[in-house]
Amino acid sequence: MRELNVDLAERTYPVMVGSGLLSSAGRLLARRGLDAPPIVITNRTILKFHGPPLLQSIREVFGDPAVVCIRDGERFKNHETLMQIYRGMFRANANRRSWILAFGGGVVGDIAGFAAATFMRGIPFVMVPTTLLAQIDSSIGGKVAINVPQGKNLIGAFHQPAAVLSDTDVLKTLPERELASGLYEIVKHAAIRSESLMRYLESRLEAIQHCQTREMTHIIVESVRIKAGVVASDEKEADLRMILNYGHTVGHAFEAATDYKRFKHGEAVAWGMIAAVGFGRELGHLRPGEARRLIDLIHRVRPLPSLKGIRLNPLWNALVRDKKFRSGDIRMILLNRIGDAEIRSGVDAATIRRFLRGFLASGGNLEDRRG
Amino acid sequence: MRELNVDLAERTYPVMVGSGLLSSAGRLLARRGLDAPPIVITNRTILKFHGPPLLQSIREVFGDPAVVCIRDGERFKNHETLMQIYRGMFRANANRRSWILAFGGGVVGDIAGFAAATFMRGIPFVMVPTTLLAQIDSSIGGKVAINVPQGKNLIGAFHQPAAVLSDTDVLKTLPERELASGLYEIVKHAAIRSESLMRYLESRLEAIQHCQTREMTHIIVESVRIKAGVVASDEKEADLRMILNYGHTVGHAFEAATDYKRFKHGEAVAWGMIAAVGFGRELGHLRPGEARRLIDLIHRVRPLPSLKGIRLNPLWNALVRDKKFRSGDIRMILLNRIGDAEIRSGVDAATIRRFLRGFLASGGNLEDRRG
Repeated sequence: MRELNVDLAERTYPVMVGSGLLSSAGRLLARRGLDAPPIVITNRTILKFHGPPLLQSIREVFGDPAVVCIRDGERFKNHETLMQIYRGMFRANANRRSWILAFGGGVVGDIAGFAAATFMRGIPFVMVPTTLLAQIDSSIGGKVAINVPQGKNLIGAFHQPAAVLSDTDVLKTLPERELASGLYEIVKHAAIRSESLMRYLESRLEAIQHCQTREMTHIIVESVRIKAGVVASDEKEADLRMILNYGHTVGHAFEAATDYKRFKHGEAVAWGMIAAVGFGRELGHLRPGEARRLIDLIHRVRPLPSLKGIRLNPLWNALVRDKKFRSGDIRMILLNRIGDAEIRSGVDAATIRRFLRGFLASGGNLEDRRG
Repeated sequence: MRELNVDLAERTYPVMVGSGLLSSAGRLLARRGLDAPPIVITNRTILKFHGPPLLQSIREVFGDPAVVCIRDGERFKNHETLMQIYRGMFRANANRRSWILAFGGGVVGDIAGFAAATFMRGIPFVMVPTTLLAQIDSSIGGKVAINVPQGKNLIGAFHQPAAVLSDTDVLKTLPERELASGLYEIVKHAAIRSESLMRYLESRLEAIQHCQTREMTHIIVESVRIKAGVVASDEKEADLRMILNYGHTVGHAFEAATDYKRFKHGEAVAWGMIAAVGFGRELGHLRPGEARRLIDLIHRVRPLPSLKGIRLNPLWNALVRDKKFRSGDIRMILLNRIGDAEIRSGVDAATIRRFLRGFLASGGNLEDRRG
C-alpha cells in the first residue's frame, strides 16, 4: 500500500492506494478521530460485489454501520436522493459524532459528501471510490454537489474528506470501457503536468490494462499527486486549476452533440485532447513528435468510438453555450510539450470553427488532414 | 453609526450598527468585493415596511436586485422554502459572482445564509437583521441551517456573512413583546460576561425600551462583542460556547411544557435564567444581592407571562429529553457573580427536580420560596 498526504484548505488528509484495502479499512481508519459507526452510502451493485469485506472490517473497529443504498446514475444525484440519505441517517440515529463512508463512484462521492457537509452543519466523511475516475479525480479537491434541473453540480459545498481509500482490486471488476475512461483522464494528468508519468504509461500500458496492482497503484498515486498539486497551488495562483480541464471544453461539446449517448465522459475528453493537440499544432504549439506520442497513447488505451456523423453545427452550438466561449475572451488550454500546459487567451473563434470542420471531416485523424 | 469587526474562522467581517443604515446600505457595502446586484431574500411584511429605502440604496450602487419573498415563521424554514429560494436565484440568472442579502429576522437569516452556503458551492451573503434578537444573536457566529421533520437546524453549514448591517430604526416597529424578547437575551449576555453592560441596562432601561438610537446602538454593539468573543475563543477553549446557553436548558423545557404557545423564546429564557439563579443559590453560587439584581432587571424589562398551571412532570420530561440530561454527567451553567459564568458538572438530577418543584409552587418567586 502507498500513502500520500493531500494538503488542502486547513486540513491534510491521507489518500491510501493499494490492493486489499477494503478488508483492512477499519484498521486503516482507526485513530483518525472517528469514533462511532459510520453511515455507509453506496448502491446495490457495489454493495453486492464489494460490500462484505468492507462492512466486516468496519464492524470490527467501529461497530455495526448503517447502510443507505441509493440509485446509481448521474440523474439520481438530486434532491430526492439527498433527502433519502438524510432520512436514512436519522433512522440510524446519526449525530454530530457520526461520519459518512462514501462507497462507490463519482455520483456516490459527490452526493454523500454533500450530505456530510450539511448534516448537522458538517460531519466527517471518508471516501472509498470504486471507479478509476473517482479514485484519481472526484475524490480529490473537496468539491461535493448535487444536480438541479437548472444544471449539474449547481448546489454544493467544499468539504474535504477525512481520508480516501482506493483499493485497486475493485478496478478488476470494472467494465473495460469504464476502466479506459479513467485511464484517459490519467493520460490527461500526465500530458499537462508529468512527462515521467507519460513514459510510465507508455511502457507499462499492458500491465495497467490488466489492473496489475503495482502499476495501477503507481499511476493512481501519481495522478492524485498531480491533481492535488494543481488544486493546492490554485489557492495562490489564480486560474491554474483550469489546466485540469485540458480536453474538456471540446470534449463536453462532443458529448452534447451526441446527446450524451455515444461517448463515456473519458472518451469524449480523449477526443477533446486529440482536437486540442491538432489545434495547438496549428498555433505552433507542441512539436509533431510529441503530438504523435500523446495521440498514439490515447488510441492504445482503447480504440475510441468514432466521430462519424457528428456535424459541425451541433458541435459548434454546444461549444458556444459553454460559458468560457461566451465571455468574449476565448481561452484554450494548449500543451507546449508533454508535461507542460499553458492557458492561451485571445483565441479566435473563426479559427477554432475552421479547425473543427477539418477535424470532423478527417474523422479525427490529424495525419490524414495534414497529408 | 458604530462599526465592530468580528474575527471568526479565516475571515473578518464588519458589523455596522446605527440609525438610518437601510438607506445607506449600498454605500456601506461598496468596496467589499461585491460587484453584482444581490438576490434579496425577505418576507412580505418586511418588504412592505422597510423595503423601499434598502432596495433604492442597493440599486444605486449595485444595479437592480432580484427579490425573493419567503413565508414568515419557523415552520417555513424548510426544504420547500430553500428550493423556492434556489429557483428564484436561477430565475434571476444568479452566478458565482452573485450574492445574497438576507433581510429579515432569524428565520430569513438562517435559510438565506444556507442558500448562500450551498449555491454554486458558496457565494457571499450580507445580513440586514430586522429583529433585536437576530441583530445580537443569530447574525453572529456563521451558523446557518434549515429544519427537517426530525428537528430544528439539523441540516446546515457554517458560512460567515460578508457584513452585517443592523439598523436600530427598524426596531421601532417591533411589537413590544418581540423587543423584550431580544432584550432578555442581551441581559443574558451581560449576566454571563459583562457587569458593565448590566449596569448600563439598569441605568438606561427606559431609553432602551423607547428604542433611543444611542442606547440601542450601545447595547447591540456590546452584545455582539460578547457573543463574538465567546464564539471566537471557543475555537481554542472547548465548551466555552456553552455559556451562551445560560437559561436555555430550563427555558426550552418551559417552552415545551407549554406547547410553545405561552412564551416567546426570550421570555422562556428569562424564566430559565431566574430558575438558574435560584438553583445556583442553593449550590452556593451568586450572592443574594446579585441574584436580586438580575431578577429585578428581568422583571423590569417587561412582566413575564406567569408560570401558573405548569406541572412538574411535563416540565421534567421535556428536560430529560434534552441531550445534555441524557449523557449521564449533567452540566449546568451557573453564575459566580454578574459577568462571570461557570459550567458546573456532576449536577444531581434529584436536586434539580426538587428545586423545580418548589420553583413552580412559588410561581417563580424565589423570595417567596425562601421566606
